Amino acid sequence: MFKLDFEKSDGLIPAIAQDYKTGDVLMLAYINEESWNLTLETGNATYWSRSRSKLWKKGEESGNVQKIKEILVDCDEDTVVFKVDQIGGAACHIGYRSCFFRKVENGELKVIGEKVFDPKEVYKK
Amino acid sequence: MFKLDFEKSDGLIPAIAQDYKTGDVLMLAYINEESWNLTLETGNATYWSRSRSKLWKKGEESGNVQKIKEILVDCDEDTVVFKVDQIGGAACHIGYRSCFFRKVENGELKVIGEKVFDPKEVYKK
Repeated sequence: MFKLDFEKSDGLIPAIAQDYKTGDVLMLAYINEESWNLTLETGNATYWSRSRSKLWKKGEESGNVQKIKEILVDCDEDTVVFKVDQIGGAACHIGYRSCFFRKVENGELKVIGEKVFDPKEVYKK
Repeated sequence: MFKLDFEKSDGLIPAIAQDYKTGDVLMLAYINEESWNLTLETGNATYWSRSRSKLWKKGEESGNVQKIKEILVDCDEDTVVFKVDQIGGAACHIGYRSCFFRKVENGELKVIGEKVFDPKEVYKK
């Protein structure tokens, strides 16, 4: 079994979630060794939430889990790509398909993404 | 002009370079505010090298610059996607088109990427 290099950045490495069909980048989050092992074991993308300092089973609350289709590892073994099937069609907590729903245009941000759900309905907060 | 959130992680945020035609993720590197401004000004992806602690004009040595076609910004404004035209056809310093040239298969890494150049020839080191 190969090892990812978790030492470099305080035990956390970036994981890029990419739609396995369209190739769209959906989000970037961080994994520690525990979430990496859980991702491999369960087949569902599992991250480490830096803001909440806890394991983050993506989709646990919203149901929008990410089924792992393929995992790519970079040359330095300190970044991974999760190619996923995004259940529910939306990765972003504010309801867009991708967290990258805006592009830079003339120095401003322009929304180009598609809103899939209303977060008020999904999270009931 | 909007601002990226450089405060969160010691002034560095991750930038995902993605082939603007194929959607393949080519590499992940980090940007600070200076490299971000230079990327916008020059239209060429410019990073901050953590290992060398210096500004990294991608392709400066190899000629394999990344021409910016589009920039996407995430919901938290702490990660960007550079959609690029990868000159020379290879982003990875060891000669592969993408740094993500291996996939996880049965707990091991299997090369699936295509080698475009011989680093010994390009870097003459």
